[in-house]
Amino acid sequence: MKLLFSPTSPYVRKCLVVAHELGLNGRLQLQASNAHPINRDREIIQSNPLGKVPTFFTDDGQVLYDSRVICEYLDTLAGGSLFPRSGPARWEALTLQSLGDGMLDAALLARYEDAARPEAIRWPEWRAGQLDKIETSVQHLQARPALLAGRVDIGAITVGCALWYADLRFADFGWRARCPAVAAWYAGFSQRPSMAASWAL
Amino acid sequence: MKLLFSPTSPYVRKCLVVAHELGLNGRLQLQASNAHPINRDREIIQSNPLGKVPTFFTDDGQVLYDSRVICEYLDTLAGGSLFPRSGPARWEALTLQSLGDGMLDAALLARYEDAARPEAIRWPEWRAGQLDKIETSVQHLQARPALLAGRVDIGAITVGCALWYADLRFADFGWRARCPAVAAWYAGFSQRPSMAASWAL
Repeated sequence: MKLLFSPTSPYVRKCLVVAHELGLNGRLQLQASNAHPINRDREIIQSNPLGKVPTFFTDDGQVLYDSRVICEYLDTLAGGSLFPRSGPARWEALTLQSLGDGMLDAALLARYEDAARPEAIRWPEWRAGQLDKIETSVQHLQARPALLAGRVDIGAITVGCALWYADLRFADFGWRARCPAVAAWYAGFSQRPSMAASWAL
Repeated sequence: MKLLFSPTSPYVRKCLVVAHELGLNGRLQLQASNAHPINRDREIIQSNPLGKVPTFFTDDGQVLYDSRVICEYLDTLAGGSLFPRSGPARWEALTLQSLGDGMLDAALLARYEDAARPEAIRWPEWRAGQLDKIETSVQHLQARPALLAGRVDIGAITVGCALWYADLRFADFGWRARCPAVAAWYAGFSQRPSMAASWAL
């Protein structure tokens, strides 16, 4: 199994955390890539025309993307329980994954505004709108502590990766002071070996 | 069942097409909303902190998002076969959905650049990079006609909605001339009653 990798992609990190939780990380070969929204990586595009990471190759040669598909594949392969198989528990976990992915999408757009777009053509209201998506999401979790308490599944992992990325890119965002219950949850969850691991090539 | 609605959201359209294919559209109540990345809709945020459509309410009161979760829920509810249940067929359909969603994400970002961002701070290279994602994706499908031929599932529906949205927003994109096999497929697929239906409030 092979994963096209970038050390700072939060979606790649989701897949690596899932693989680690499932005991599959030793079987995963990481391959460097240079995904970029403007200078698009033509090598990725040969397999995944969106030119994004993570892109994943099964041992049978099937190409899978994006992170949601890869994570569910890994869970199925390992016979794991990170994706509840049916019923309300499945929809709750998948919706929590959507929440975490939405936080990540917003953080990445704010990051492109800060770091990729030339300074003269940045739009503060756009950046503020994206960061506000993260803010209202963390507030939502703060008001519903039962959503995360004791949970180790694709929903919790995705939210954990979103908070990891928010800290990486927006260190002064200051969400912990406003959402202490989420901060307490993350302080524990981020100690899991899967979350604390670091990956490099 | 209730769906927060916008007539031009391609992700909402995905859900409506899926509901129509499953014979569930008569049970779906549509409710107007005003999702926007800057002037965020506080009413949506009460249920979905990302403030996006589609947001969906089950008859049991569970709130589901985003379109992937809603579509799979509807398919399960109806006992449909739009999401293959297991094996390589599942990963292929889900990856095709990711491809279509990635085309939609790119098209929406190009649309925000054209229509939301003030003209003086637009970035042509960003817009071109997003449209190139659609181009390489359609080329990928053109080179692999078996991916779409005869397929009626979440993958084909998502690609169909992506082409619908590309036509709506970028009428001069001209993909049909460059990708005639995809154009021929879409000419047929878009005649399905689910795809040809129109929705309004």
